[in-house]
Amino acid sequence: MEPYQLTATQMLAKLKDRSLTVEEYARSLLSRIEQRDATVKAWAYLDPTYVIRQARELDQTPMDQRGPLHGIAVAVKDVIYTKDMPTQFNSSIYEGNAPKVDAASVAILRKAGVLFLGKTTTTEFAATTVGPKTSNPHDPTRTPGGSSSGSGAAVGDLQATLGLGTQTGGSTIRPGSFNGIYAFKPTWNAISREGQKVYALLFDTLGLYARSVDDLELLADVFALHDDALPEETPPFQVQGAKFAMLKTMVWPEVGAGTAAAMEKAADLLRAHGAEVEEIALPPEFDDMPHYHRVVLHAEGRVSFLPEHRTAADKLHGFLVGHVENEHKYTRAEQLRAWDSMAALRPKVDAISGRYAAIVTPSVPDEAPKGLESTGSANFCSIWTGLHTPTVNVPGFKGENGMPIGLTLVAPRYHDRHLLTVAKAVGRIFEAEGGWDRKSSLGV
Amino acid sequence: MEPYQLTATQMLAKLKDRSLTVEEYARSLLSRIEQRDATVKAWAYLDPTYVIRQARELDQTPMDQRGPLHGIAVAVKDVIYTKDMPTQFNSSIYEGNAPKVDAASVAILRKAGVLFLGKTTTTEFAATTVGPKTSNPHDPTRTPGGSSSGSGAAVGDLQATLGLGTQTGGSTIRPGSFNGIYAFKPTWNAISREGQKVYALLFDTLGLYARSVDDLELLADVFALHDDALPEETPPFQVQGAKFAMLKTMVWPEVGAGTAAAMEKAADLLRAHGAEVEEIALPPEFDDMPHYHRVVLHAEGRVSFLPEHRTAADKLHGFLVGHVENEHKYTRAEQLRAWDSMAALRPKVDAISGRYAAIVTPSVPDEAPKGLESTGSANFCSIWTGLHTPTVNVPGFKGENGMPIGLTLVAPRYHDRHLLTVAKAVGRIFEAEGGWDRKSSLGV
Repeated sequence: MEPYQLTATQMLAKLKDRSLTVEEYARSLLSRIEQRDATVKAWAYLDPTYVIRQARELDQTPMDQRGPLHGIAVAVKDVIYTKDMPTQFNSSIYEGNAPKVDAASVAILRKAGVLFLGKTTTTEFAATTVGPKTSNPHDPTRTPGGSSSGSGAAVGDLQATLGLGTQTGGSTIRPGSFNGIYAFKPTWNAISREGQKVYALLFDTLGLYARSVDDLELLADVFALHDDALPEETPPFQVQGAKFAMLKTMVWPEVGAGTAAAMEKAADLLRAHGAEVEEIALPPEFDDMPHYHRVVLHAEGRVSFLPEHRTAADKLHGFLVGHVENEHKYTRAEQLRAWDSMAALRPKVDAISGRYAAIVTPSVPDEAPKGLESTGSANFCSIWTGLHTPTVNVPGFKGENGMPIGLTLVAPRYHDRHLLTVAKAVGRIFEAEGGWDRKSSLGV
Repeated sequence: MEPYQLTATQMLAKLKDRSLTVEEYARSLLSRIEQRDATVKAWAYLDPTYVIRQARELDQTPMDQRGPLHGIAVAVKDVIYTKDMPTQFNSSIYEGNAPKVDAASVAILRKAGVLFLGKTTTTEFAATTVGPKTSNPHDPTRTPGGSSSGSGAAVGDLQATLGLGTQTGGSTIRPGSFNGIYAFKPTWNAISREGQKVYALLFDTLGLYARSVDDLELLADVFALHDDALPEETPPFQVQGAKFAMLKTMVWPEVGAGTAAAMEKAADLLRAHGAEVEEIALPPEFDDMPHYHRVVLHAEGRVSFLPEHRTAADKLHGFLVGHVENEHKYTRAEQLRAWDSMAALRPKVDAISGRYAAIVTPSVPDEAPKGLESTGSANFCSIWTGLHTPTVNVPGFKGENGMPIGLTLVAPRYHDRHLLTVAKAVGRIFEAEGGWDRKSSLGV
């Protein structure tokens, strides 16, 4: 196996037993990138010389001074500040923009010893659905999803081991499903969002990509995600005997054949492994969630993009100009009703999901659609972004064209570690028996 | 009258009729600063040469290309990014820190043509109550309040015409009262907070300082604050015939003689000017607001200061180390209960305040206390920060030692413009008949 194929957990073991250096691993990733970049185009900025320089410095760090993610290669979405690389938001307004400041997440990862590979493509300000240049590693004629297009594609294509994305609607989970990887949106504000471009303060969440849940757990440790302690006698989680909810949600009419089949197969697999599986529906008061999400998104975007509108409106996408100019004429009263209604629904959905090991629900309508123009629909994700619950996309299924399809697991707010534990057990089953295989899809 | 004494509204008129240049006005402010800085110490960074250079450039801008705040001198709290000046957060971790990036608020003001005077002192990260070097312009043995110590003192001392602060507890309103100026905390997230240090995402709000409500209205225009349209037949606001609520709140036991007397006098003055004044109390479910605010503050600070804790814990104030280490052992369940309870109270308090022109309530327990060590109590303010309502400190009263005391006006969320209208009419009365006078207090 080439080093670029390793997960973070595997690479850390090889560093520890000295069977691999950071530089060897970095060179392997750079060769993968060189080989694939003309097709996938995941990077907004990447300087191989700087990558090697970092790797050499990391190799010189004494063993006892190494951080918990020493040497691990991370791709950073280009809406997150990095003091050593430009941050350009895929906006011509910010061409060449390179303030000397790290986002909170980047500062924490830097201290943990990671190797920053480069900045990855995004839709404009992570706020439109207009695809950047990036293609899906499993079929270059299809979108990798967005807005975290580059991080999703880079981790999916074995060009990066871990990736940072963001989610305001479905920007982390959707590329997770389209690229066949694990995508984790933690509880809102469980990780500092400082230094990542604001779209909607109430929704924006840092997102994490990996190809294993063990790797997500490493990241959860580094970001100090802690659930409340469980009663001491709690047995370790296993699928056998656990209870899952299958939830179609109010946007189910948008579902395609691939996701519908994945939902059925998931229920069958969980049952086959001894779980109890219940079909549930949310109470009718949740029906307006997509509307509430849209109203708050526009209302907050009206505030967030005012500086760009004032200074360079002609360079701002029409969708965002529409936000600032309040094109839908949402009133403050409608905005507050949306805000307050969502707030009231959050403890209610926690109570529902708290009855199960997790809720299983679609990540996306179907496999990645054809074309790079649009990054696809966020409607299955934005509900959970608005409700602030942690979600994980678990890969393993495949669509009619052989493209990956994942499903979302949901837990109550601040049950992030619980959710990862469940995702690990469920992922083992979905990846083994769901029908999609990364290696054969990528031909490695 | 010296140019440094002008309000923004007055200065704009003088620029328009060409009776004053920006450079003359800037030089007047710089001479005031030079004369007073050894005592007040409001500035964390100020370069007179750069101020004059900006002023000259502004004077050269053709009349038809000037922004709505052309030439107006603004003091910026040193937790808000400015691409042309350092941003150091009063933290040794960030000594010399100067990333080339403007906060959203600064970018908007820059486009509006303001003259940035410099950066003003703050408590560490605007998150402790340990006073910086700054003293109160009305008595150098007393605190100017915090955390927006320097902006409050600079505007109060006629060293700056407008000031930017922030508020997470009482960091804008409290210095407003202590320094005898208008302080405006808009509805939460009505102005973008991008580029200002995060403490508690759910509370942090940009704050605005001025010595007249006309000036606050200029700022409200520039920041695009809009209420919902009123019915067409709505008559212009006047105190005569309006209804006000006097509210002592659950923290009234902390009140001192000065604020208690100001509350009584305010009610008398409003009645004498023909208003109906009603004493109200909040329902008992609001009693836990101070507790909820504290729990969420700690829980969010736990996230916000993780990067500094990881990289330089020894240079972080013990209070903030305590946040990150969760010294009070708040559980996630307590945190969510605080969060959800506050969210549920917001529409309720809007319904209450919506019955009145405004609620009148204390800004602070009393006049500015002796000593510079502590910036005082935020308890009368943090309720409203948590409830997201707009508040304005209206000056005009005085304490037993002749120091200024202001009162807070509260309106429902997104009634920012309404609140300013009311504050203007009420301020005219309080300033004329409340008993405190800026000019005689400053001896100008």
